[in-house]
Amino acid sequence: MSGETTAATKPTPLRIGFIGAGVMGSPMAGHLLDAGHELVIHTRTEARAHDLLDRGAYWGESPAVAAEEADVVFVMVGFPDDVRQVVLGNDGALDAMSPGTVLIDFTTSDPILAAQIAELAAERGVAALDAPVSGGDIGARRATLSIMVGGDPGVTERVRPLLETVGSTVVWQGPAGSGQHTKMVNQILIAGSMTGLSEALLYARAAGLDPSRVLESVGGGAAASWSLTNLAPRILAGDFDPGFLVEHFVKDLGIALDNAGRLGLELPGLALARDLYTSLRDHGGARDGTHALILESARRSGLSWP
Amino acid sequence: MSGETTAATKPTPLRIGFIGAGVMGSPMAGHLLDAGHELVIHTRTEARAHDLLDRGAYWGESPAVAAEEADVVFVMVGFPDDVRQVVLGNDGALDAMSPGTVLIDFTTSDPILAAQIAELAAERGVAALDAPVSGGDIGARRATLSIMVGGDPGVTERVRPLLETVGSTVVWQGPAGSGQHTKMVNQILIAGSMTGLSEALLYARAAGLDPSRVLESVGGGAAASWSLTNLAPRILAGDFDPGFLVEHFVKDLGIALDNAGRLGLELPGLALARDLYTSLRDHGGARDGTHALILESARRSGLSWP
Repeated sequence: MSGETTAATKPTPLRIGFIGAGVMGSPMAGHLLDAGHELVIHTRTEARAHDLLDRGAYWGESPAVAAEEADVVFVMVGFPDDVRQVVLGNDGALDAMSPGTVLIDFTTSDPILAAQIAELAAERGVAALDAPVSGGDIGARRATLSIMVGGDPGVTERVRPLLETVGSTVVWQGPAGSGQHTKMVNQILIAGSMTGLSEALLYARAAGLDPSRVLESVGGGAAASWSLTNLAPRILAGDFDPGFLVEHFVKDLGIALDNAGRLGLELPGLALARDLYTSLRDHGGARDGTHALILESARRSGLSWP
Repeated sequence: MSGETTAATKPTPLRIGFIGAGVMGSPMAGHLLDAGHELVIHTRTEARAHDLLDRGAYWGESPAVAAEEADVVFVMVGFPDDVRQVVLGNDGALDAMSPGTVLIDFTTSDPILAAQIAELAAERGVAALDAPVSGGDIGARRATLSIMVGGDPGVTERVRPLLETVGSTVVWQGPAGSGQHTKMVNQILIAGSMTGLSEALLYARAAGLDPSRVLESVGGGAAASWSLTNLAPRILAGDFDPGFLVEHFVKDLGIALDNAGRLGLELPGLALARDLYTSLRDHGGARDGTHALILESARRSGLSWP
């Protein structure tokens, strides 16, 4: 991949503002620190930043403080409303940024909001990219994330070395919002896989089969998927630790469904998955991993799992 | 894998009856011929058997004739009604079979029918196995099918060398009907993947993305699946040749849904997939491959594809 940062081509250290230090943001910010950049971190819960501060990051009292004098500002928060607040709200990042700097939002958020931010940023001479990621906390720790970029292609190339510090696959997808739309495609695919996986394993057990043995028959062919390989064993073990949180997936599926409607699409599989995950969340599954969907499938059939 | 037939452990040639010579049955019967067995073929359309007859197979005028004096009778036909007819109907195979012989049905069919056949067979001293396969026409030609076996485990081990002549993964799944149930699990998984894949690609195009570029971002992570890797490129190219026929998948999903109901399960994702595929079939897609589901997704949104 072009633009990889190696010892031989060490990049000029940049001043980076980083907003958010959750399960994804912390390791991502850590990689940027490790690459030699100066990092100012802001996060809602200061305690979450302690590890980064110990490693040499500076504390920013607000998104605006973290963004002041930064060459590049990264955002990795939870929900679109959080993005709106830390970027456009009181003491938000954008107002503190200088012309020629770049704002990059890693949060999975709304494509419409991404386009709005890009437009408001452009009025200040700031370039904004939407750059949601897939690969989860493991990908964040290993810097193997897939980063889907929307915004100016030239700016994308300029910041590619930074993006390749936290991810292994960086693909420019189109104008502002296109990164978010691409992430929605990813989530629609997963929604289908997870629905099928939950119903298939429930069927297997109800039919009296040994689900582990079933996986020997179905795991290597046309039914194969990342979900089947990685999540089915955890489902069978009744281990519903996240992985990826149900409450975040409900958010993502809601964004996808809103945008599908806006685009004139009828996507009944996506709508069903959103309803199932919403019900799962409302029945106590908000902080489980997405593979807990089988609990909802079982509940609807009057069964328990495992 | 145990019981593999190699040159060093050439099996005793058996007399085999084979009923069905379609896109799956022909290459499967061919492998049995190649392994040195004597094969009597019967199929509804005699012309389809010409290649096998040229290679040394004998013609059986009816299922009963093909089954007479056979050590093992294989069935690979289209629908459960076909299975019922060629096994239990007039001039059906079962009445012609001798005690101690084995009937193996490769057709994807109803688990209830499989259990009925096993019971009727047992009354004659015949062992019946349900042994549906996955892997498609390519797996049939390459003898790499996954074979999911229901019935007596001892009989399964006895015929394992024969099964490994046509498949590479042979797993005993439980009593009669369990092979069929396992295949239903496989099809429920695929139903979810295909629904997600169709809706995701339709979303990608409607959002103005370049779907091929989107695949670079989403193909390697949690959204990955056999369907995404193998079928998305064909969907994007508008190539809907089967692969696996829509009309057969509608059959399979109907069997799965009937059995889910019988087992007290509510599987809304499966029900949705059955409805979508039924509508696709009824709108001219019966002889397309299952990846043509995107035509149904597009139609529902008032769009065409590609």
